[in-house]
Amino acid sequence: MSAKRTLHHFPLDPASRQVRLAMAEKKLAYEEVIERYYEGRPEFKALNPSGLTPVLVEERDGDRIVICEARAILEHLEETEPEPALLPRDASRRAEARRLMQWFDRKFDFEVNAFLIHEKMEKRLLRLGAPDYAAMRQGREGLRTHMTYLETLAEERNWLAGGRITLADIAGAAHLSIIDYLGDVPWRDFPAVKTWYMKIKSRPSFRPLLGDRQPGLAPAAHYADLDF
Amino acid sequence: MSAKRTLHHFPLDPASRQVRLAMAEKKLAYEEVIERYYEGRPEFKALNPSGLTPVLVEERDGDRIVICEARAILEHLEETEPEPALLPRDASRRAEARRLMQWFDRKFDFEVNAFLIHEKMEKRLLRLGAPDYAAMRQGREGLRTHMTYLETLAEERNWLAGGRITLADIAGAAHLSIIDYLGDVPWRDFPAVKTWYMKIKSRPSFRPLLGDRQPGLAPAAHYADLDF
Repeated sequence: MSAKRTLHHFPLDPASRQVRLAMAEKKLAYEEVIERYYEGRPEFKALNPSGLTPVLVEERDGDRIVICEARAILEHLEETEPEPALLPRDASRRAEARRLMQWFDRKFDFEVNAFLIHEKMEKRLLRLGAPDYAAMRQGREGLRTHMTYLETLAEERNWLAGGRITLADIAGAAHLSIIDYLGDVPWRDFPAVKTWYMKIKSRPSFRPLLGDRQPGLAPAAHYADLDF
Repeated sequence: MSAKRTLHHFPLDPASRQVRLAMAEKKLAYEEVIERYYEGRPEFKALNPSGLTPVLVEERDGDRIVICEARAILEHLEETEPEPALLPRDASRRAEARRLMQWFDRKFDFEVNAFLIHEKMEKRLLRLGAPDYAAMRQGREGLRTHMTYLETLAEERNWLAGGRITLADIAGAAHLSIIDYLGDVPWRDFPAVKTWYMKIKSRPSFRPLLGDRQPGLAPAAHYADLDF
């Protein structure tokens, strides 16, 4: 029997976006609950003690399972809804896709998000005061280093981990899409990354993300354009 | 045919320790290469562009696969060497184990390691100057919050994710063991966590970790004692 799914997510959270994209690629229906994680809603902390999005709740035949954190959800979906596969079958390619997932979730998160998303969005949501311009500059420098590396991948490969779309593309696009909302991606200098991003941005799975708006924080003018 | 395995790791890296523990629990033999990741050896960056440990190289029947980053290696080992299982079969328990892996690798890493390991070890290795005492205090406060949460888990459960040892215990023990090397774990105030840690510390898989020594940085006096 198919499961009833509810996804607790925050629209401008890169981890939540990875799950929304993967579920849409797998054509899995779900109800959504928007969690303003920075408000610390007690019912949400009861679901996930870390207080972080995303959390997926699955109900099937009277059973209810709660899956917290993007990586756990993505691996679970590959195991339980294997088609279409978002991880390659071959162990070496599979490892390459997972390497890149970790690249975005740890390295990009530390070197880019922790500065740009934190200064431009989180400080506002958490009322932590004005952005620190030196930190924003450091985030933009980190972003250029990441874009330079991604450009070498995108020049060589159709998708980031090889010939087909995988969770590596989903992770990369989810992270970059938030930085793009904030208007900080220097697309002009990285044409191969731009071509890759246009390709994933044009997929039906991406469309809901382009409609996301955070009150008080307007997206960059080109954010929702497929031709940017 | 069984694979020839080589693990590139750094002894006091929590991510590397997770893989060493998991391979020992699965009784997989491997050769080890100690990588001083902070030296940025070009041959190592050619294996893993992030420059981070651990990296596992498997050679089998003339094929060679390179698996970078702990999470990718741990999932790969579960898939290719399933016995003994370190992730439960049941989807809900499996999700619980993966939730806790992420808890340690993201939340603990941000709130504890980024202060304590960075100030007390990385600054020395990377020659970044003297430790910042305010940052160390922040790390110790973060650690107490984490210990308080772990205490509630350890009071209720035999192992962190339920009745059997899983990758959640391995992740938690790997992270805590580095903080313990640095002498910062307030064991006395968290008896259930201490009992859990004594149990995992006594396993044969843990023994090699207790022999690790970083030149110039002596471990806490009780670090290698099973009765501490």
